[in-house]
Amino acid sequence: MRIAVDAMGGDKAPEVTVKGALLAAAEINGEIILIGQKDAIEREMASQKNIPSNISVIHADEIIAMDEAPAVSVRRKKDSSINVAVKMVKDKKADAVVSAGNTGAVVCAASLFLKILPGIERPGISVFLPTLKGITNIGEEETKGPEFVKETFKLLEQQKGINFIGNVEGRDIYVGDCDVIVCDGFLGNVVLKVSEGLAEAFKEMLRRKLSTNIITKIGAFLSAPAFRALKKEIDYSEYGGAPLLGIDGICIIAHGGSSPNAIKNAIRVAQESVVQDVNKHIIEVINFGK
Amino acid sequence: MRIAVDAMGGDKAPEVTVKGALLAAAEINGEIILIGQKDAIEREMASQKNIPSNISVIHADEIIAMDEAPAVSVRRKKDSSINVAVKMVKDKKADAVVSAGNTGAVVCAASLFLKILPGIERPGISVFLPTLKGITNIGEEETKGPEFVKETFKLLEQQKGINFIGNVEGRDIYVGDCDVIVCDGFLGNVVLKVSEGLAEAFKEMLRRKLSTNIITKIGAFLSAPAFRALKKEIDYSEYGGAPLLGIDGICIIAHGGSSPNAIKNAIRVAQESVVQDVNKHIIEVINFGK
Repeated sequence: MRIAVDAMGGDKAPEVTVKGALLAAAEINGEIILIGQKDAIEREMASQKNIPSNISVIHADEIIAMDEAPAVSVRRKKDSSINVAVKMVKDKKADAVVSAGNTGAVVCAASLFLKILPGIERPGISVFLPTLKGITNIGEEETKGPEFVKETFKLLEQQKGINFIGNVEGRDIYVGDCDVIVCDGFLGNVVLKVSEGLAEAFKEMLRRKLSTNIITKIGAFLSAPAFRALKKEIDYSEYGGAPLLGIDGICIIAHGGSSPNAIKNAIRVAQESVVQDVNKHIIEVINFGK
Repeated sequence: MRIAVDAMGGDKAPEVTVKGALLAAAEINGEIILIGQKDAIEREMASQKNIPSNISVIHADEIIAMDEAPAVSVRRKKDSSINVAVKMVKDKKADAVVSAGNTGAVVCAASLFLKILPGIERPGISVFLPTLKGITNIGEEETKGPEFVKETFKLLEQQKGINFIGNVEGRDIYVGDCDVIVCDGFLGNVVLKVSEGLAEAFKEMLRRKLSTNIITKIGAFLSAPAFRALKKEIDYSEYGGAPLLGIDGICIIAHGGSSPNAIKNAIRVAQESVVQDVNKHIIEVINFGK
């Protein structure tokens, strides 16, 4: 098992990616290959103690910035860490790729170099969300407008082997009555970002209210284990990365603001996807639906 | 000051609308006119004590259901409570209209009967959101896709008299760094519904964690005033209805799931909009921008 990690992807790369890869290397049964500017990566590794032997570095000269136009940058920056990392999978030099970089560029590179699975038109990102009844999976696709939603409805209605319950509203997401929610990419991104923003605002509002007086402060102190348990439950870094489904290869997309722990968990998700042979199951379901 | 209230609008009409109107009648300096099926409204009023003299009923035979197709139902159900209530404003028999009914139908009826303000192409709904720095206003417009967003960006960039800070992400909404956020209606609805759903799930998750053991339960008991204060701060029913901006008249849209308190506050928002002559300011700003 070899996992290629885009060391230059993410808001605080390569610091966070190197730290995350080191955490993962200590846990996984396999090899981690960091892809990116060798000097920067090795400088970061030098500041860490005990580099495990199952971690190596492959140089890639260019970096695709978080806000660069995806299609253009993937085509122009042939030696970017994203391209080189994705091509490792294409060339069977890695079993999976993990990137916290420019999401559009990762999707673009994966579609371009790894190809789309037979029967799939376009890849989709699958994100886990904590709900009142466990974990729900949001599947995102490129934006296509309301007509696209109606068409998708018809297709899902006809799909065998799934329990399609119809449209849900934004307020149903966190109730957890559905295991999988499908939406377009723009909308899915809004759902994730609004949820993140609200959860943080909520935390801060609660913190302020709990600081009102000595009684509420004591209450907050005694309740602290409950707050910590909740924080762990809703912390996306615990769920790791989002699998890019529908491409012929394993590609895990991590949040741009990932912590080392989130990178570690994204690498874990990559490992599990390889072990469970996710693409085999996707092809089976597509053929079953026919 | 006379405010027409669509008594048949909302998930629990006319019970909740009558109760809300009674709460408002006791507070506002003006007259409230309930529009809808007289029998049902009067039955509801009969179950209440002390009906104030500033509340009256006007019969409207039909009801537009919450899930009916807006444009069709507004055209066909000429004697619906929404149509009759909106026409009260058109005929100068009321200064404002409040409805917790089918949002699309209210927008449609208002656009059709009250007309659009000069210089405005389409009305927009303005919703208040609590943020870390106070209250932000989300302006929603009909869905037009990503190109529409780019066009809007250019127009806002050129607009004089505003401090346009560019695009924001979902996670910026609750930080409160902008006073007004503009988005399309579909997206705005998702933001609101996801926020509502997450806030409720968050509350329930926290409640469960706080019930873990006796220590966290005592903590929760002592922290209760902080939780109550936060609940009040983020409860949309406290902010009342959402003004439908851009039409020649005052029209306030309340949440379908409004409580009596939310209806009361929507009527308060209607009263304030009349007093502050909101449309005069909109016309001034439009002319100023030219």
